[in-house]
Amino acid sequence: MKKWLLTAAIAASFGATADEGMWQPYQLPAMADELKAKGLEIDAKSISKLTEFPMNAVISLGGCSASFVSPKGLVVTNHHCAYGSIQYNSTPEKNLLKDGFLAKTYAEELPATPGSRIYVTEEVTDVTDKVKSGQMSKTGNDFYKGIEQAEKALVAECEAEDGYRCKVYSFHGGLEYYLVKQMEIRDVRLTYNPAGSVGKYGGDIDNWMWPRHTGDYSFYRAYVGKDGKPADYSKDNVPYEPKSFLKVSAKGVSDGDFVMVAGYPGRTNRYRTANEVENQFEWAYPEGKILRERLIEIIKTTAAEGSDERIKYESAIAGLANYAKNFTSMIEFYGKSTMLDDRKALEANLAKWINSDSKRKAKYGKTLAELDKLIAQGQQGQERDILLSYMGYTTMKSTAERLYRLANEKALPDMEREPGYQDRDMTRFKSSMERIDRRYAASVDKAILADLLKRYAALPAEQRLKDFDKAFGIGKKFDEAKLMKTLDKMYAKTKLSDKETRLAWMDKSVAEFKKSNDPFIKFAVATYDEKMKREKKAKQLAGDLMKVRPQFMDAIIAYNRELGKPVYADANSSLRVSIGNVTGYSPQDGLVAVPFTRLEGIVAKDTGADPFDAPKRQLELINNKQYGDFYMKDIDSVPVNFLSTLDTTGGNSGSPTLNGRAELVGLLFDGVYESIIGDWGYDPQTNRSIQVDSRYMLWVMKYLDKADNLLEEMEIVH
Amino acid sequence: MKKWLLTAAIAASFGATADEGMWQPYQLPAMADELKAKGLEIDAKSISKLTEFPMNAVISLGGCSASFVSPKGLVVTNHHCAYGSIQYNSTPEKNLLKDGFLAKTYAEELPATPGSRIYVTEEVTDVTDKVKSGQMSKTGNDFYKGIEQAEKALVAECEAEDGYRCKVYSFHGGLEYYLVKQMEIRDVRLTYNPAGSVGKYGGDIDNWMWPRHTGDYSFYRAYVGKDGKPADYSKDNVPYEPKSFLKVSAKGVSDGDFVMVAGYPGRTNRYRTANEVENQFEWAYPEGKILRERLIEIIKTTAAEGSDERIKYESAIAGLANYAKNFTSMIEFYGKSTMLDDRKALEANLAKWINSDSKRKAKYGKTLAELDKLIAQGQQGQERDILLSYMGYTTMKSTAERLYRLANEKALPDMEREPGYQDRDMTRFKSSMERIDRRYAASVDKAILADLLKRYAALPAEQRLKDFDKAFGIGKKFDEAKLMKTLDKMYAKTKLSDKETRLAWMDKSVAEFKKSNDPFIKFAVATYDEKMKREKKAKQLAGDLMKVRPQFMDAIIAYNRELGKPVYADANSSLRVSIGNVTGYSPQDGLVAVPFTRLEGIVAKDTGADPFDAPKRQLELINNKQYGDFYMKDIDSVPVNFLSTLDTTGGNSGSPTLNGRAELVGLLFDGVYESIIGDWGYDPQTNRSIQVDSRYMLWVMKYLDKADNLLEEMEIVH
Repeated sequence: MKKWLLTAAIAASFGATADEGMWQPYQLPAMADELKAKGLEIDAKSISKLTEFPMNAVISLGGCSASFVSPKGLVVTNHHCAYGSIQYNSTPEKNLLKDGFLAKTYAEELPATPGSRIYVTEEVTDVTDKVKSGQMSKTGNDFYKGIEQAEKALVAECEAEDGYRCKVYSFHGGLEYYLVKQMEIRDVRLTYNPAGSVGKYGGDIDNWMWPRHTGDYSFYRAYVGKDGKPADYSKDNVPYEPKSFLKVSAKGVSDGDFVMVAGYPGRTNRYRTANEVENQFEWAYPEGKILRERLIEIIKTTAAEGSDERIKYESAIAGLANYAKNFTSMIEFYGKSTMLDDRKALEANLAKWINSDSKRKAKYGKTLAELDKLIAQGQQGQERDILLSYMGYTTMKSTAERLYRLANEKALPDMEREPGYQDRDMTRFKSSMERIDRRYAASVDKAILADLLKRYAALPAEQRLKDFDKAFGIGKKFDEAKLMKTLDKMYAKTKLSDKETRLAWMDKSVAEFKKSNDPFIKFAVATYDEKMKREKKAKQLAGDLMKVRPQFMDAIIAYNRELGKPVYADANSSLRVSIGNVTGYSPQDGLVAVPFTRLEGIVAKDTGADPFDAPKRQLELINNKQYGDFYMKDIDSVPVNFLSTLDTTGGNSGSPTLNGRAELVGLLFDGVYESIIGDWGYDPQTNRSIQVDSRYMLWVMKYLDKADNLLEEMEIVH
Repeated sequence: MKKWLLTAAIAASFGATADEGMWQPYQLPAMADELKAKGLEIDAKSISKLTEFPMNAVISLGGCSASFVSPKGLVVTNHHCAYGSIQYNSTPEKNLLKDGFLAKTYAEELPATPGSRIYVTEEVTDVTDKVKSGQMSKTGNDFYKGIEQAEKALVAECEAEDGYRCKVYSFHGGLEYYLVKQMEIRDVRLTYNPAGSVGKYGGDIDNWMWPRHTGDYSFYRAYVGKDGKPADYSKDNVPYEPKSFLKVSAKGVSDGDFVMVAGYPGRTNRYRTANEVENQFEWAYPEGKILRERLIEIIKTTAAEGSDERIKYESAIAGLANYAKNFTSMIEFYGKSTMLDDRKALEANLAKWINSDSKRKAKYGKTLAELDKLIAQGQQGQERDILLSYMGYTTMKSTAERLYRLANEKALPDMEREPGYQDRDMTRFKSSMERIDRRYAASVDKAILADLLKRYAALPAEQRLKDFDKAFGIGKKFDEAKLMKTLDKMYAKTKLSDKETRLAWMDKSVAEFKKSNDPFIKFAVATYDEKMKREKKAKQLAGDLMKVRPQFMDAIIAYNRELGKPVYADANSSLRVSIGNVTGYSPQDGLVAVPFTRLEGIVAKDTGADPFDAPKRQLELINNKQYGDFYMKDIDSVPVNFLSTLDTTGGNSGSPTLNGRAELVGLLFDGVYESIIGDWGYDPQTNRSIQVDSRYMLWVMKYLDKADNLLEEMEIVH
């Protein structure tokens, strides 16, 4: 059954069907009739207006989504999205991760982890013409740079207004460009999070799984200066008063109900070519899985459970494990699917359509071949590149590289600098340098780097990098003991583990770097030129891809237009809306996943040991059937999590799931295991998002955590 | 939820509710109205008549159940029940286990494994008075012996008629005794079995699991002499013509339909005391699990996969694994349940009821205390006894012991001998001695014995056995190397691995044994007296239990009678009938197991590797949707397996599952994982039996295996 369903789903994946689609808000009014028929009660047009309810209550945390739920800037998101801030405020003595946290007053609220931001999208403008104007005659690196330059100019203009963050998003691989203007709130505070045994009940074991019983929610509060404008953290700041906020439903949804979700999905690959699919599933995911599992093993053996070092890496382990599981699912379901054959068939059909018309043939006839040629180029050296990219999990090497890059970039005029190294980026750059102390242990950093370098040293000579080899003393015959000695020395000697030292390097010149004796700085300096050469080559390719892929997407859109199907763009971290229903699915022949889990399921799963160690008081409340105001008759209990057909992906975490009146009925926090491969193709039979039910949030807040102050503050719809 | 459900179920477990109950056929007429209301279409009285349709078509294979499905003695049972015979006829060149087997004519049929029998129950007589008469003044060993003697006399009288096998079954722990008279068919032949990748699709991984897609069926044929009477195997024998046989339904059942099952459930423990429950779940199952997993490991490391040795032990591995998984489930669900507290509460309620009436108090007032005292006695030395019992998995030691026991028993008059050593047992004794060659490899036997002896040697001195220690040279300080040397010598020197030698020992005297130099015979002789002493002590206890437990059961029955509830006896391998419905269940909060699996589920599970390696032709047939005559509209496919509420246990395997007209709609072959603990308490929410759907059997026979000759022979109801 699975085989057939995946096939059918992927066959449809170049055109939206059923509940597939992460729509740009501007696309919704055109679908108003369909949305109304499905259950939308508010005007579809209102959803397309970003400065009006409900969309102005939907916010980004950068990587996660969230929403305002009170007139005083109260923000609700996932527990796993606030995880860093909860961890940042935890100590072995006062462990907020374990025990939870509730500020009863503003004064008790805690600063979020440095660099935390809340972004309120205020404007989205089509800037395709502005970005492309005068660029189309260029190719490769020039085209890449030209586009980047145009984007920077638009961003600079947009950010002239204080307190805003702007970005140009590319859609359909560069077919369209939109300038997004977001208010950037810089003073974010932790208001409330449930105990870890509620907020991440089930932990990694239940991650991506159904049945699920996770209370994956937490609350922040946005603060601004007394003038109402974004400001750095200050005791004098006041809670932000959003233009609107979401009401929270205590009635929730039932099986079959209409739901929609607004948020910031990160990335999907619904329009990749067969060659890209094949390389990703048959090489990149298997390799990535191996590396992730190995890195977890290294961290666990290097930093003993419960040690200070281990606490620093819990977040890294969680991230590594999360995607190791993700990749495992990708590989499993790809193996069961006919995805590759289907993509090939689709490309053949597209080619047939193109070639059946001379005008189309002239326009798109060579597009796919050109695209595939560039894709093949990009795959050269990927065995090395994946190792270099996983070295990003180490801190000393990348810190030195980033600092030296900064010194180099600073020598340029601000507008010519690499994104991330402009003046506008310096606050975030600085906080990332500060944050290191809480996430770094030399022992672990060294062990990870050593393992990746060993793998690197085993690559064929032609894939290796001269300067890189020289810097780490990797010769023709690999000498592990020698490498370990080198690394021991480097880690013993480097001063980059000291925060003040790192911050001081932010202001130094290239010449000063070149004189440094810090071994990681020396490494960064020695390998810089070669690294820049690789980057330039990559940009050359990226520029070419940015010219060809839009043509491919243009062909796909034209093809679908003829079939009467609207096309949504792949996710790109910009604001999107998905539409769907509450419903279960069949994970396997003979089994049905029903759409709601119940409080009693928590008791049934509980073993008393992490991650199935619900608070004793919670178990008592459940055993006493204290359902209170949040009882759902259909399931004879309080619903904990629910399933929907909503088309979402990573980045959607924390998104408010809304009913037809745009009341918050849940928080999206995960997808089911079978839908992980959905990033590459939505299957209406198995693509399911998992939400925390609003009734469970309210139940925990009222009966377990006694968060009466917040319940009072929110507008709860009974 | 689980917790609550188990509690509720166990609270009800001393009185039958819903579909709970393995009823003696004579109990059914009293329930006629209820059965009719549930969906029974034939007369309930007819089910109570063992020599009439349908009960005379239901047969026992000794350990498994089966049924006649043609006028020519065709028998259908589970693949796993015919496994030994399929294995017996398999060689590396002609592997019936792997490739399947179909006799197109009588002549092509193959002899079943030696000792195979078909038992047709013809009479069940209440002999309680006869058995107990004159015994009640005795205690302990005398009582035990007295009852045994009475049983033997009844059996001898019953078996005076040639071709019959008789046995006295004790019900309710000795409250009642029934004499069962069965025709014993000794010429059994293998007619047809599907390929292993159909018959045990899913293997150990899917064992006890749902969703399930196993074609667990095979066919035997019963042969008798030309006179129609049971006879030893002979070419001149003819197919047995049963008085009736079951029609096979091609229409099958639907969700909710009435079903019943007739078969020979082995053993349940629904009326055990809290102390027995505690010891079993907190000591015996955990210990048993460890030993089983260790034995599997030993076999696997000693006998390489694919080797002749390994083939000999596949059946042993399957048996060990089956119950290792069973015990794991027992431990898991006991941990989640409140079973122990519930039993204690029940005993308290029973005590309250007893003590509230002076007559009852006089009759039952001390019963439970006496019972528990005896139970505690029985647990003394159990750490040693479990090791001795697992030594039963070795062959040389137990063969020598059995042969020497036989020599001793033979010195007694037949009626005074231990059951199993009487003249009536000699045919089976002999075939068990012959069968050894196909199940024995010295390397494995030695490795298992060595491991168990090492464990034995680690026991405290007071638990160890003097003669036993001496025979194996186990001293105060355990010397492993010395033990291994001893065992090497014993296995090198023994001649018991030779079939003719074993058979010759069957006729030798005690004196001849005492003169033997065979190391295992010497061991058996040296340890015999101490072993007999232990046996006598055990019988002393058993005798006492046989007097006290019936009083306890009598109290329970009286208590339930007052509540208006009929009480069924614990399973004891005698013929029973269970009544139920086709229905799914919720294995976990948020998941529902639907009652039917589909052909497409086979394709979805298939990996191409054992145990998920369906025949290619089968996959093709499914992918081509060749459902033919066996299509079920509700599921848009052919059903493979289905779930029912039928109350069954081990021994029920192969039982015909019948619709209201007593047509065969499936073969019972397993229960779901959650219902394993059902042997100790039936939970209406999770107790589910798994059946092969008759439509799947017929589909495989017609389209895959082309067993047209058998389809022709059976009476199929469309």
